[in-house]
Amino acid sequence: MTTKSKIEEGLGFEPQFGADGLITAVVTDAKSGDVLMVAHMNAEAVAKTIASGEAWYYSRSRKTLWKKGESSGHVQRVVELRVDCDQDALWLKVEQAGEGACHTGRRSCFYRTVPLGQSGAVTLEFRNADKTFDPDTVYGGMAGKRDR
Amino acid sequence: MTTKSKIEEGLGFEPQFGADGLITAVVTDAKSGDVLMVAHMNAEAVAKTIASGEAWYYSRSRKTLWKKGESSGHVQRVVELRVDCDQDALWLKVEQAGEGACHTGRRSCFYRTVPLGQSGAVTLEFRNADKTFDPDTVYGGMAGKRDR
Repeated sequence: MTTKSKIEEGLGFEPQFGADGLITAVVTDAKSGDVLMVAHMNAEAVAKTIASGEAWYYSRSRKTLWKKGESSGHVQRVVELRVDCDQDALWLKVEQAGEGACHTGRRSCFYRTVPLGQSGAVTLEFRNADKTFDPDTVYGGMAGKRDR
Repeated sequence: MTTKSKIEEGLGFEPQFGADGLITAVVTDAKSGDVLMVAHMNAEAVAKTIASGEAWYYSRSRKTLWKKGESSGHVQRVVELRVDCDQDALWLKVEQAGEGACHTGRRSCFYRTVPLGQSGAVTLEFRNADKTFDPDTVYGGMAGKRDR
């Protein structure tokens, strides 16, 4: 079995971390199927997520491991964790505690749509962009610092 | 308005490409909500996707732009394109033509699950792993080379 076929067809979990030591994690809402966020994990975040069944990530901006919800209470219970063909991406189906996953105060980070069929400068449109919680209250003025 | 709040709360589409010139693209099935694949786009792939309404990506292994389905016929019609809060990830909801998105012959690239609640070496389990098409036939022996 070649390395490639072992990774693609085998049952050994061998996450392929990038040169930065990270792997991409896509997080969807187990109920609605919506993509809540895209984050990154290092080996320790992967191990803690598997062991605990709750989502841990690595913050590229703060250069530190963090547990989702550690400051907001918006913990993510992992319903299922999957790995893709070449084992360089993870998919977490989660039960999102609290009102949302996004540090801006929305349920999902994907609250703007890109209109199709055009070229040149693109103007976004809001979708499901109502804030479901007040990030200043929830994060105590630390929005975008501690819990992302 | 700071740059951060402009990117997060503004309606200007300003995709934040990484040092490698790429942005992460999460692709879900518009009907089932399943994550089909995670891929990458450069600026040209983003522009072509927006203009055409069909998914274009950038292959990191082949270092080239590619249209999904160019060799397999498994084109992805983009039903909706969204961008996340800090504009460094895209979410494509697509109608997947043909039998699947994965170059291994499955509908989704995420055909293995990682069992939770354990530490140490992890053994994966197959989920929805039946091949829906024969990659050798569809890609003409080029599976994993041309159409990914």
